[in-house]
Amino acid sequence: MTDKIWASSADSHVLEPLDLWKRALPAALAERAPWTVRDDNRETVYVDGQVMRRDPISFSDAMRPPGAEDVSARLQDLDEQGVWAEVVFPSRGLWISNMSDAELSRECARAWNDWCAADFASASARLLPSAIVSALDVADAVSELGRAKELGFQHVYLPTTPPAGMPYNNEIWEPLWAAAAEAGMALSFHVGTGASPVVARGPGGAVINYVETTMPGQRVVTHLVASGALDRHPDLRIVIAEGGCSWIPALADRMDEGYRQHDMFVRPKLSRLPSEIIFRQVYTSFQHDRSAVPTVEALGYDKVMWGSDYPHLEGTFPNTQKVLHELFDGVDQAVIDRITEGTMRELFDLPERIPA
Amino acid sequence: MTDKIWASSADSHVLEPLDLWKRALPAALAERAPWTVRDDNRETVYVDGQVMRRDPISFSDAMRPPGAEDVSARLQDLDEQGVWAEVVFPSRGLWISNMSDAELSRECARAWNDWCAADFASASARLLPSAIVSALDVADAVSELGRAKELGFQHVYLPTTPPAGMPYNNEIWEPLWAAAAEAGMALSFHVGTGASPVVARGPGGAVINYVETTMPGQRVVTHLVASGALDRHPDLRIVIAEGGCSWIPALADRMDEGYRQHDMFVRPKLSRLPSEIIFRQVYTSFQHDRSAVPTVEALGYDKVMWGSDYPHLEGTFPNTQKVLHELFDGVDQAVIDRITEGTMRELFDLPERIPA
Repeated sequence: MTDKIWASSADSHVLEPLDLWKRALPAALAERAPWTVRDDNRETVYVDGQVMRRDPISFSDAMRPPGAEDVSARLQDLDEQGVWAEVVFPSRGLWISNMSDAELSRECARAWNDWCAADFASASARLLPSAIVSALDVADAVSELGRAKELGFQHVYLPTTPPAGMPYNNEIWEPLWAAAAEAGMALSFHVGTGASPVVARGPGGAVINYVETTMPGQRVVTHLVASGALDRHPDLRIVIAEGGCSWIPALADRMDEGYRQHDMFVRPKLSRLPSEIIFRQVYTSFQHDRSAVPTVEALGYDKVMWGSDYPHLEGTFPNTQKVLHELFDGVDQAVIDRITEGTMRELFDLPERIPA
Repeated sequence: MTDKIWASSADSHVLEPLDLWKRALPAALAERAPWTVRDDNRETVYVDGQVMRRDPISFSDAMRPPGAEDVSARLQDLDEQGVWAEVVFPSRGLWISNMSDAELSRECARAWNDWCAADFASASARLLPSAIVSALDVADAVSELGRAKELGFQHVYLPTTPPAGMPYNNEIWEPLWAAAAEAGMALSFHVGTGASPVVARGPGGAVINYVETTMPGQRVVTHLVASGALDRHPDLRIVIAEGGCSWIPALADRMDEGYRQHDMFVRPKLSRLPSEIIFRQVYTSFQHDRSAVPTVEALGYDKVMWGSDYPHLEGTFPNTQKVLHELFDGVDQAVIDRITEGTMRELFDLPERIPA
C-alpha cells in the first residue's frame, strides 16, 4: 500500500438517535415507531409492537463506531479512511419499510426526513442522504418525494421487497415513477429491506441468507424493466445498493432472451431491449467484489459504484484503504475514477473534491 | 456467416413417448404418471391428479420438431445445426420433480431411465442423457444413481427447487452427495424445475417469470457451497443448466464477502473460500448470452458451456449457426473451444468429433 486512494461511497448508513420519533411525533404514533431494547446480551428491535430482529449485542455494537451517530466523528472517519462524498442510507429508519400501517409509515418517514435534513445533512455537502417515503401508499410517497426535494435530498430510498400485494410491476406505482423522473430524483433500493433477510436455517445459513438479500434487488430491476416503467421514463434512474454489480450483465442477457424468445407472451412491448434500458438507467454498488473492475472493463456495464457500507460489518471500515488498494492497484486510472466517483457524479451533485 | 461452427450442447431435451409410463408401470401407478390432454386450444399437463401446467397448443407445438421425439430425425437436426454431442434432459420426465408421493416418484424415475437407456441413448454415443432420480427419498435417489451408472448414464438430473422441507443445505442429502462423488456422476440441476416457474402476474409477467427461474439455480450453488457439501466432496461436480453463466462471479464474490465479513455466524467453516469451490466444481450453461465470452476471458470463470436447449423456444434451434456466429466470430479460438466443448469434456466422456 502506498498512496491514499480517495473514493466516494455510494452506500453508507447513519445511525439515527433512538428517540428521534419520540421527540417528533405524538405519543400515540411515537410508541409504535422503531425502538430497541437491550437485555440478555441481545438487542431486540420492535416496530409497531412486533419483534423485527434480535441480534447479539456484540454484533450490534461492532457496527457502531462513534461516527455512526456523531456526524463530526463521522467526517473524521471519512477523511482518515479516504472517503470523500457519501451516499447515506438510514439504519433504524429502514424499519419503516416493514410497517403495515400507512399513517405510521408516512409520519415516521416525514419525521426522519426532517431530522436528517436539519441535524445530519446540514453538517457537510459531502453527505448525500436518501429520503424515506412510505411504500404503503403511493400518493403519500409522491407527496413526500416532493417535500424531500424541497429539503435538499437528491434521492429517495425504497425497499427491495415491496409491501405484500404491491409488486413493483404493478401500475399502482406509476405516479411515483413519474414523480421521481420529473423531479430528477433517483430511486435507491437498498438490499435486505422490506422483508426479513433471514430465510434459511441450518448449515451455511449465515452465508445463504447473505446471498438471499441480493435476489429481491434482482427482482426490482426485472420488474421495473419488464413492466415498462424505466422505458416510459427514460430519465428515471434507479440504484440497487449493496448487492454487488456484476450480476447485471447476466440479468440483462436473461431478460433479453426471455423478451425475444417468448415474444408471443410478452406484454408490454418495450421501445428498447431490456439490456439497453438496464445498462443506461440501473446503477449498482459493491464493497469488495473482485468482479467489479472486469465488469466495467470487459462487460460493458459501467453504472458501477463502490460503497464502503460504513459502518456495517459487510463494509470496508476500518480497512478501507486496504480494500481500495486490493481492488484498484494496477487498474487503468479511468476505470478507477469511474468506479470511485464518476458513476456517482452522474447521479448526484457532489462537491468538488479537495485535492488530497 | 461463413464456415460452420461445430459445438456440443450442454442442455437439450428429449420428448418422451406420452405412454412411456402406461407401458412400463402397473395401472395403479401409471394413471398417476405425467399425462397431457389437449382441448380448447390448450394443452394441460396432469401429474397425480393435479394440473401442473396449461399452455396454448401453439406454444407446445412450436417446441416439437420431429426430432424432439424421433431420435433419427434428431440426429439429422444435430448434423444440420452443427451440434456434435448433446447433454439431454427429460421433458415429461421433469414433472417427476413435482410429485409428492415417494413410490410414484421412484417408480416413474426408474421407468424413465430404463426407457431412455434402451430406446434413446442407445441410438448414438453423441447423446448424453441425464438419469432421473426421486428427490423425495434420498435412499431411493442413491439406489437409482447406482443403477443409472450401470445403465451407462454419466450424470443425474435434480430439480433446482427441492421438495418442501428438504432444502439442499440439509444433512439429509449427504448420502446422495457422497454417492455421486464416489460414482463420478455429475449432478445436473436444470432451471425451472421442482416448482412452478410462474410466480408473477401483470405487466412484464412473461419476462419476470423467465428471470425467476434463475434464482433457484443460484440457491442450489449457494446451499451446496455454504453447507460444505462441495467442500467435503472435492470430486463432486454440479451443473446448473440453462440459467446462464455470468452470474457465477457475482455469486462467488457475494459468498466470499458473507463468509469473511460475517465470520462470527458462519457454520460450517470451509477449507477453501466459496469462490474457489464454485470456480472449480460448479458448471453452468447458457444459450445466447453475450456475457459468456467475457466471463471466461476476463472474469476467470471457465466452467462455462454453451447449450442449444433443443427443441425449446428459449433455445437456438433452428438458428443455431446464426447464434454461434454472433457469439464467437472474432473470439480467440481457445475460448471458443473451451465453451463449445472443452468444458463439457471435463465433465463427460464424449466421442471424438468427426472432422467437419
